[in-house]
Amino acid sequence: MTDPYQPVPEDKFSFGLWTVGWEGVDVFGPASRPPLDPVESTYKLAELGAAAVTFHDDDLLPDDSTRDVTLKRFEQALSESGLRCEMVTTNLFSHPVFKEGGLTANDRTVRRYALAKVLRNIDLAASLGAETFVMWGGREGAEHGASKHIPAALDRMAEALNIVCAYAKEQGHHLRFALEPKPNEPRGDILLPTIGHALALISELEHPEMVGLNPEVGHEEMAGLNFAHGIAQAMWHGKLFHVDLNGQHGPRFDQDLRFGAGNLRGAFWTVDTLLGGGQAAPYQGYVHFDFKPPRAEGLDGVWESARGCMRNYLILRERALAFRADPEVRAALEAARVEELSTPTVAPGEPLSALRDADYDLAALTARSVAMEALDQLAMDHLLGAR
Amino acid sequence: MTDPYQPVPEDKFSFGLWTVGWEGVDVFGPASRPPLDPVESTYKLAELGAAAVTFHDDDLLPDDSTRDVTLKRFEQALSESGLRCEMVTTNLFSHPVFKEGGLTANDRTVRRYALAKVLRNIDLAASLGAETFVMWGGREGAEHGASKHIPAALDRMAEALNIVCAYAKEQGHHLRFALEPKPNEPRGDILLPTIGHALALISELEHPEMVGLNPEVGHEEMAGLNFAHGIAQAMWHGKLFHVDLNGQHGPRFDQDLRFGAGNLRGAFWTVDTLLGGGQAAPYQGYVHFDFKPPRAEGLDGVWESARGCMRNYLILRERALAFRADPEVRAALEAARVEELSTPTVAPGEPLSALRDADYDLAALTARSVAMEALDQLAMDHLLGAR
Amino acid sequence: MTDPYQPVPEDKFSFGLWTVGWEGVDVFGPASRPPLDPVESTYKLAELGAAAVTFHDDDLLPDDSTRDVTLKRFEQALSESGLRCEMVTTNLFSHPVFKEGGLTANDRTVRRYALAKVLRNIDLAASLGAETFVMWGGREGAEHGASKHIPAALDRMAEALNIVCAYAKEQGHHLRFALEPKPNEPRGDILLPTIGHALALISELEHPEMVGLNPEVGHEEMAGLNFAHGIAQAMWHGKLFHVDLNGQHGPRFDQDLRFGAGNLRGAFWTVDTLLGGGQAAPYQGYVHFDFKPPRAEGLDGVWESARGCMRNYLILRERALAFRADPEVRAALEAARVEELSTPTVAPGEPLSALRDADYDLAALTARSVAMEALDQLAMDHLLGAR
Amino acid sequence: MTDPYQPVPEDKFSFGLWTVGWEGVDVFGPASRPPLDPVESTYKLAELGAAAVTFHDDDLLPDDSTRDVTLKRFEQALSESGLRCEMVTTNLFSHPVFKEGGLTANDRTVRRYALAKVLRNIDLAASLGAETFVMWGGREGAEHGASKHIPAALDRMAEALNIVCAYAKEQGHHLRFALEPKPNEPRGDILLPTIGHALALISELEHPEMVGLNPEVGHEEMAGLNFAHGIAQAMWHGKLFHVDLNGQHGPRFDQDLRFGAGNLRGAFWTVDTLLGGGQAAPYQGYVHFDFKPPRAEGLDGVWESARGCMRNYLILRERALAFRADPEVRAALEAARVEELSTPTVAPGEPLSALRDADYDLAALTARSVAMEALDQLAMDHLLGAR
Repeated sequence: MTDPYQPVPEDKFSFGLWTVGWEGVDVFGPASRPPLDPVESTYKLAELGAAAVTFHDDDLLPDDSTRDVTLKRFEQALSESGLRCEMVTTNLFSHPVFKEGGLTANDRTVRRYALAKVLRNIDLAASLGAETFVMWGGREGAEHGASKHIPAALDRMAEALNIVCAYAKEQGHHLRFALEPKPNEPRGDILLPTIGHALALISELEHPEMVGLNPEVGHEEMAGLNFAHGIAQAMWHGKLFHVDLNGQHGPRFDQDLRFGAGNLRGAFWTVDTLLGGGQAAPYQGYVHFDFKPPRAEGLDGVWESARGCMRNYLILRERALAFRADPEVRAALEAARVEELSTPTVAPGEPLSALRDADYDLAALTARSVAMEALDQLAMDHLLGAR
Repeated sequence: MTDPYQPVPEDKFSFGLWTVGWEGVDVFGPASRPPLDPVESTYKLAELGAAAVTFHDDDLLPDDSTRDVTLKRFEQALSESGLRCEMVTTNLFSHPVFKEGGLTANDRTVRRYALAKVLRNIDLAASLGAETFVMWGGREGAEHGASKHIPAALDRMAEALNIVCAYAKEQGHHLRFALEPKPNEPRGDILLPTIGHALALISELEHPEMVGLNPEVGHEEMAGLNFAHGIAQAMWHGKLFHVDLNGQHGPRFDQDLRFGAGNLRGAFWTVDTLLGGGQAAPYQGYVHFDFKPPRAEGLDGVWESARGCMRNYLILRERALAFRADPEVRAALEAARVEELSTPTVAPGEPLSALRDADYDLAALTARSVAMEALDQLAMDHLLGAR
Repeated sequence: MTDPYQPVPEDKFSFGLWTVGWEGVDVFGPASRPPLDPVESTYKLAELGAAAVTFHDDDLLPDDSTRDVTLKRFEQALSESGLRCEMVTTNLFSHPVFKEGGLTANDRTVRRYALAKVLRNIDLAASLGAETFVMWGGREGAEHGASKHIPAALDRMAEALNIVCAYAKEQGHHLRFALEPKPNEPRGDILLPTIGHALALISELEHPEMVGLNPEVGHEEMAGLNFAHGIAQAMWHGKLFHVDLNGQHGPRFDQDLRFGAGNLRGAFWTVDTLLGGGQAAPYQGYVHFDFKPPRAEGLDGVWESARGCMRNYLILRERALAFRADPEVRAALEAARVEELSTPTVAPGEPLSALRDADYDLAALTARSVAMEALDQLAMDHLLGAR
Repeated sequence: MTDPYQPVPEDKFSFGLWTVGWEGVDVFGPASRPPLDPVESTYKLAELGAAAVTFHDDDLLPDDSTRDVTLKRFEQALSESGLRCEMVTTNLFSHPVFKEGGLTANDRTVRRYALAKVLRNIDLAASLGAETFVMWGGREGAEHGASKHIPAALDRMAEALNIVCAYAKEQGHHLRFALEPKPNEPRGDILLPTIGHALALISELEHPEMVGLNPEVGHEEMAGLNFAHGIAQAMWHGKLFHVDLNGQHGPRFDQDLRFGAGNLRGAFWTVDTLLGGGQAAPYQGYVHFDFKPPRAEGLDGVWESARGCMRNYLILRERALAFRADPEVRAALEAARVEELSTPTVAPGEPLSALRDADYDLAALTARSVAMEALDQLAMDHLLGAR
């Protein structure tokens, strides 16, 4: 019997090479696992059923003598495994030169170096055929109220985005840029802390059509926000360019659990939203996992964790599709008047004064049943495979 | 000796009539205080030093037989006290007809009633000379993943905002609209949960210049976000139309403490940011308090709480101004290169290829002192009046 | 075909009459539902499959002229439906006399009244055959640093507990007392904020054997704590006298969602822990639900919500039992050495100096696989019914 | 003019050598600062005004060939500087052998090694004259529901504590043990997550009088708990053996800001509580700082940060003492009836039946003013130096 949850390339699963490659260094201790060769990890991820890999420049191709050889080996791995390199991102947070920020460091030369690093990496991304270029500003932020002028930091972030867009156009690269918001950690407060703040910034750019988002489950949940609602708003703005799936237990440190672990009900609605939730255009991009196998795990656990991300997505996809296909669910959606929200409140050409002065039967409107608990229990049944 | 922290009308302090008027009803118990006559509260707030009052339609002028008399009494109170009515807002959250939302309720008739209530209230606001019209969508949200179609809800919210803008223009009202974000409570998750999400929505409206924000300290802090950073981003977008000051202890229920109580360091940076932080154009609007005197307090405590909001603002304003004026602080800002962030990263016309290919002395850049703890301790000294 | 998730009395499901009876009053609005007759609710809960009901004195038997008639009707309902009244609790938080606390109010007369109310209620509980008497100190707390002397408040709480124990013994009542911790809301900070703090207090009482805990899922999760770990510690101390199941989304306002909604993975481990988790003595008490049907719901939703609590428990029970019975899970538990933790670290009589001075092969100990991701994925599969 | 906030040894300030010694390694990047020689740091801290230092075994004396020389140098530094080594603690969290826990690792040999490391370190602590031995179980916890049997983990923790107490007695060491609770990070959930849970465990030990707490500001605030209330409860149990002061912004990653940064009002009440709050016996131990100079800072910032901890404590101490000495505050405390809480609710020998059956004038009791906002504003004024 075949496993219904065995991933295949058509599922478009994609993994950051830094995820399985995390050695376990944290604030309280050094590496607990040996380094993995990222090229070997590429083969291994193909074997597990992934369709693509992604990386930060430094994960794979540090700027040293090993670079050319590794690049050749990586290209061969992609070719042999059939994997895509769908996204590339730049590490502007590990090297201590970025200790006070990269693109928004107070020090202008640091900013210039950060931008140079991004530009070089954009060329690499294009040469590898990546379609998305993610920008996570992990150290763009502050611990102190007076140390960072926020309007100036937003100016610099906008400047940098305008430059990278201009550069990509100038070089003829077919890349889209995706901002990854995060509220805090490792900085006390990070610039563009949520999906909303990043969307707002994009509206002020010179090439807003080239810039969208790469939201991460855990980052929004660290602020107690509903991730499915967040990506739904991003989709509404046409800005869900990429997505980072993982798991988190609400406001606390960034846990980067495998997808499904953490807030499981949230994961179900996330998958449902990506699939279009029966109503909107579904997300078409790669399903990208950005997690950390717990530091306690050995290498066996690293691969279990990667496998679990895909397996949980596939189980949840099956359940979300069954939920949307269930006639009883459709009846419950109707009872809850979910579709009615798509009808405009005011008819075209309707005079507002009539609306304003009309009589409304508040008692009747109040008495209606909203029937949402019943609908939600049907969702629970489907999620749990109990129907 | 005169009290240096005695408020005067030039301070532009403004109070919601619902703040001192809160009777103490919560999920766990009924009113603990008698109703206050809002007109009497207007006189009392003038006496305490306020410059303006604000209200929800239902706080002052419920749609019943008392309306005309109360309106006349209120106008007289404004006239006698010299207070302005600078802002008006609509209650779309108390009446159970709004139990499932107002402008984004699934039920279209509820939405029509909500909009009608807003339109009537806009006329009232204009007739009272208010310049800002706040919209807080306290019940616009959901507890259940499938019960609310978020893209449709955003469509309806945008539709409503387009309509109110068109209506105000059509009627010749000089009003600006200000959205008030909140992440949750009383709904499980609320639409437009943060400053960022609301800013993003505005960029999609038909009259974006007429719509801005009314952020509230506690609402952002319930999501663990830095309020001063949030309003700084709103100011950067030109969207800080109004502000709600109060106090909160991070992610938990909405505490609505008096301003200063809760996150005091955050309050200091909030005041500093409103004053322009030495760098940007200062906020020019009313300093509006939206707090709840704790349910345990009697009426004496209600007025103490109102007094405390203004007193704390004035103390913090004195400290923030002293901080910015201190030569040692200026030297510390220079040491931390705070101003350098205002210099563009790339010079006009500079070729990007040169930037990209230049050499950077990482060791030197890394070794620099950022000197931000020293700067922050100076801020602490000023906040505490210890210099 | 019979529904495998149809509750029966042997499941020992119990409901607070205040749960289905909540009319929807919150800080932002009045009742959205009509009052329910608690006696009618008792019949209805029996019909749904419950085994018992519980109440606060004021929910059922306010101290007025209706009391005797209602009591008689309630006793008849219990008798006719076969339901038990297994627990009673006292409302020391709604009446504004308790605005500043009940058993730990600064005002001594308030404390005396609170205690009198508890004593009268203890007699009632005993007369109804309840075995557990819950004490939730919802208003025992403070918003202000100087307003409450915490050591004195702990003295008063201990005094009250010593008195109620002495009273119960003196009256010959067979009751056990169960403290219900909560970190905040409606007070800014509440005395005995977590399971741990309440356990610690109990160790200082005159009759510690008579006092245990009634932990609530949402209350611990409001502090970001792991509920299953919390009740496991309570069980370790022999103090899990009762339990309140519901749902919550981490640190925010007290949501009181139906059981299963909120943190679903946490709910699975909670059920597993109550069942003994394959290792400890299972919880033998009633499975008590303390939730609030969302304010938006009508009465249909109230009963859906109650049904959902039981249904979700039964689904999760089925899954937890299957997890523990699965041979592959047993192998995974062995691989993760879970049982090895039950072996004492030091053998009886072993000299500590030998332990201290021994050589340890750190490399080998470090290299071992902990195999916990694999185990956890098995749990996920069982939870989701995907095996 | 002398600086009133210049620390002197009588202030009993103590620093962990690992605080100034933190090189800036975090999950997202390697060291940003060079290693400091801990012996040099000892001299430097003396120069800044500290009275004592503390360390984890590995901070100062890793188990290698440098040990004896370093120990001699350290003892000389203590002798020359006049500093005490008042506390020692064991690092059971950095070495990857502890990746799955130390004293509660599933692997028994790991537990034995952890215990051996503690025993050797106890001997060292005693030889250096330390009076307190802190135990922080940073890796004692779990990410997965089934991977850790909590009752067994509590058994092992109790076993370990019983052993270390027995060992210290056997060896004639005059040491007290202090548990340091933390809710999460680096593990998903940590055993003994709060002050309360640790207090509860102590009540089950063989030598409870030898074991107390070392609570840390940030750790309790990560759970949204009130630190001053927490240590007040620990003091009530006679268990505040030591304290870790630092700063935090509520539920998020462990920030370890310098004392005063973060929740400043909380810091004020913490100092007030340590000083006895006008009511209880003051804390007599060392005032120990456990913070991390932000990674962005150079060495200059490291020492600024250390200086800031002491300076902020001294400013807050001055303000707390002035608050308690102010006659207007005393009147406000009386108005709020704070002292009345120290009067037992029931008089000795008073019959409970009379209390139970008495009449209470609820209207009068409800109408009283609690006058706590006024009291709290006085505290704010003192904190801000505005009186």
